[in-house]
Amino acid sequence: MRTSPEITLPLRLGEQNEHSTIPVQLASEFRRLISETVLSPGDVVPSSRALALHLGISRGSVVAAYDQLLAEGYLVAAAGRSTVVNPQLRSVQAPSRERIRATAAVTSSELDLRPGRPWSRDVVGAAWKSAWRQASAVPAEDTVPALGLLELREAWAEHLRRMRAVVRDPSQLAVTGGGREGLSLLLLALAHGNPSRLRVGVEEPGYPSLRRVPARLGATVIPVPVDEQGLRVSDLPTGSEAPDLLVVTPSHQYPLGGSLPIDRRQLLLEWATRHRVVIVEDDYDSELRYASHPLPALASLDDPSDGRVVLLGTLAKTLTPTLAAGYLALPEPLIDLVSSTREELGQPVGLVAQSAVANYLNSGALRLHTQRMRNRYRRRRRQVVQALSELPGVHVYPMDGGLHAVAELTRPEADVVSELAARGVRVSPLSQYWSHAGSSGIVFGFGGVDEADLTHGLRLIAEVAVLR
Amino acid sequence: MRTSPEITLPLRLGEQNEHSTIPVQLASEFRRLISETVLSPGDVVPSSRALALHLGISRGSVVAAYDQLLAEGYLVAAAGRSTVVNPQLRSVQAPSRERIRATAAVTSSELDLRPGRPWSRDVVGAAWKSAWRQASAVPAEDTVPALGLLELREAWAEHLRRMRAVVRDPSQLAVTGGGREGLSLLLLALAHGNPSRLRVGVEEPGYPSLRRVPARLGATVIPVPVDEQGLRVSDLPTGSEAPDLLVVTPSHQYPLGGSLPIDRRQLLLEWATRHRVVIVEDDYDSELRYASHPLPALASLDDPSDGRVVLLGTLAKTLTPTLAAGYLALPEPLIDLVSSTREELGQPVGLVAQSAVANYLNSGALRLHTQRMRNRYRRRRRQVVQALSELPGVHVYPMDGGLHAVAELTRPEADVVSELAARGVRVSPLSQYWSHAGSSGIVFGFGGVDEADLTHGLRLIAEVAVLR
Repeated sequence: MRTSPEITLPLRLGEQNEHSTIPVQLASEFRRLISETVLSPGDVVPSSRALALHLGISRGSVVAAYDQLLAEGYLVAAAGRSTVVNPQLRSVQAPSRERIRATAAVTSSELDLRPGRPWSRDVVGAAWKSAWRQASAVPAEDTVPALGLLELREAWAEHLRRMRAVVRDPSQLAVTGGGREGLSLLLLALAHGNPSRLRVGVEEPGYPSLRRVPARLGATVIPVPVDEQGLRVSDLPTGSEAPDLLVVTPSHQYPLGGSLPIDRRQLLLEWATRHRVVIVEDDYDSELRYASHPLPALASLDDPSDGRVVLLGTLAKTLTPTLAAGYLALPEPLIDLVSSTREELGQPVGLVAQSAVANYLNSGALRLHTQRMRNRYRRRRRQVVQALSELPGVHVYPMDGGLHAVAELTRPEADVVSELAARGVRVSPLSQYWSHAGSSGIVFGFGGVDEADLTHGLRLIAEVAVLR
Repeated sequence: MRTSPEITLPLRLGEQNEHSTIPVQLASEFRRLISETVLSPGDVVPSSRALALHLGISRGSVVAAYDQLLAEGYLVAAAGRSTVVNPQLRSVQAPSRERIRATAAVTSSELDLRPGRPWSRDVVGAAWKSAWRQASAVPAEDTVPALGLLELREAWAEHLRRMRAVVRDPSQLAVTGGGREGLSLLLLALAHGNPSRLRVGVEEPGYPSLRRVPARLGATVIPVPVDEQGLRVSDLPTGSEAPDLLVVTPSHQYPLGGSLPIDRRQLLLEWATRHRVVIVEDDYDSELRYASHPLPALASLDDPSDGRVVLLGTLAKTLTPTLAAGYLALPEPLIDLVSSTREELGQPVGLVAQSAVANYLNSGALRLHTQRMRNRYRRRRRQVVQALSELPGVHVYPMDGGLHAVAELTRPEADVVSELAARGVRVSPLSQYWSHAGSSGIVFGFGGVDEADLTHGLRLIAEVAVLR
């Protein structure tokens, strides 16, 4: 036990914490020395007078720091009048501070054609900035309604009516932080505190990100086959094999592009009613349709007051995924369930963001942006079709809409993907959209790139994909 | 089967959908008539020529609408040249549209003293608006790093260093949409796809909202007793009884207010290391401390590179819960796990909001706001102590910090809560902070109200609470 450590104690004041008072800094330094085991349990600390003299500070500051450390249990008053480091303290490991983790370098020369990215360079404009400016001037509230700001729910209802001919009362709209966040919320609402008992049907092939959400929550994922028209409704499991919930992309099957015909849609709703299945309609890009008008949403066939279809919407494809803005359109019987679940789990979308999205939707800017993007993507799509449709060993799927293209290949997919990567072009392998073995091919996006980059990418895809 | 329905068909054009083209409107009207069973499967539709004449529109518009309906499967070309409603269609129920749900009226005369609300009227100021204005001018990105914008993670790291003396690299900070969203993310990361196998320890009594998050995810919740100093570390379950994760409030136990002494903190870390338990330090209001400086965070005793403590932070108490802004400070071994989970589940906090919080933190505005609020809350706290501390049958818990007060009562809690409600004052019953039976008393907030309202509320509390 050292009895007079004052001269050697490496106390640093005023270096790092220029915004703290002297007693706070001093107490903090003592804690550091104790945790770094420079001071050990049982060590006598300097007297307040000696330490004040040594450091050139007032004695009152030292006394205040010691009082704080005594209150915290770092120090205790020992026999006589000396103060010691609490002998009950275990020695603690010193944290290794300020280590720098190198982050993976981004190669800017790479052409990223993986699907899912819209053209986001035209998002920020006058309407966007004005929407946020107005939103940030609204006085802060104490609380938010569980399902979101009424003004945003009204704007989503209007959006749905105009863009998708789906009529819902604002009370049926729930604000979400994007598609997957909305799906998580719905799954947890339907799970009644036991997501591992939930059985969730997904399309096979289908969107891998959505499939991973139920899996991550512990639900059982049941793949349901898809053909060129979309979900094979006649192959849906029945009776005790039926899932609790089925996620479908009826407007534009992801990734193959089929559009579910009306008779299958009706069969699907009948099946859902008979087996009490909740249908999640993932309406991810139906606004971006080029060849014909978008088919009406499945939700528009459903009875909103006693229906089975939840429409899952987002601005990820029409505007930008980084806005993290979406909604659930809920049939009446699910509203209270989703609302109480949201109340428990908390609303992750702040009020300013909710208000800004409402302003943006109400300004009409999204409709204009969508029109402009539809024209842009139609030109890109034409580039893709012209570059790839006549190639031997390549079969381009019909592209009625959306931001991505699917090409089946005779060449092994892994070779094509890795050869493209070696040339600086990133695309996704088609087989990853199946849970098990799937078709061989590539999926690539054409939304986020300009004409020249796409031309360059397509030339390389054509070079690599053609059977040699 | 009607053969010539053209004159009676109630087709409406130009009323609701003034932004759609005539063919789109017409197709939409046919769908409506089919789904409302005005037109039944097998019915012949009017010839394009006759309908165009009847409606006073071009024949091309009718042809375009019919083509769309044929493509969708609503109509089929029958024998000869007539077109009929697809006989394969099942009749669908008509949605009951535009029903209005009455929302519960809010009584503005009510004084809401339930805990958890800060004073939010001074949030919106120049720094706030400027933070959002700058954020909304940043060009939209295609993607966000899974754990959040680097600039916000740097700002959180700096915030932690200054406010809590916790030194973490920005790579260890994960952006969340608030405390509960952060806890959900962490739980799902640690659950490895099976949250129902997760065992989560919580303080008893404790914050009911946080306890409900693991329960909602299907995890087993294990209450751990608390005394006036906080968690009773010596009573923690060991061996196979130990939880996977323990949520604690060491700085300011919620709701009773105890501050965990340093020797208990060290025992807790030893226990966590021995039993491989992840400790979640819910640092919900440590910045709002009046009697002494906040104790160092438990996380500051932990080894950031190989530690067991996750610090869960939010601006809900220091700024406003409606911002939905928070973070997780992660020990090194958990970073990849949380990052891949976030990648799968999606980031619910949009980029503009992330950037705005970073701007606000970097401007220093939060530190100023916190200082002002600390002074405000100190005055309110004094009001509470003066009004209630001398009353017979009332025991006010020590209030070193925070925004709420706990008063144990001799009178039955249910009587007091309901009598206060009858007088227009809402408080929370103390027993609800226990999972089973707990102490009788009330918990009320003093942060979100002004001096006059609090005086009024306290007068009524004193009237009702005193034993008669």
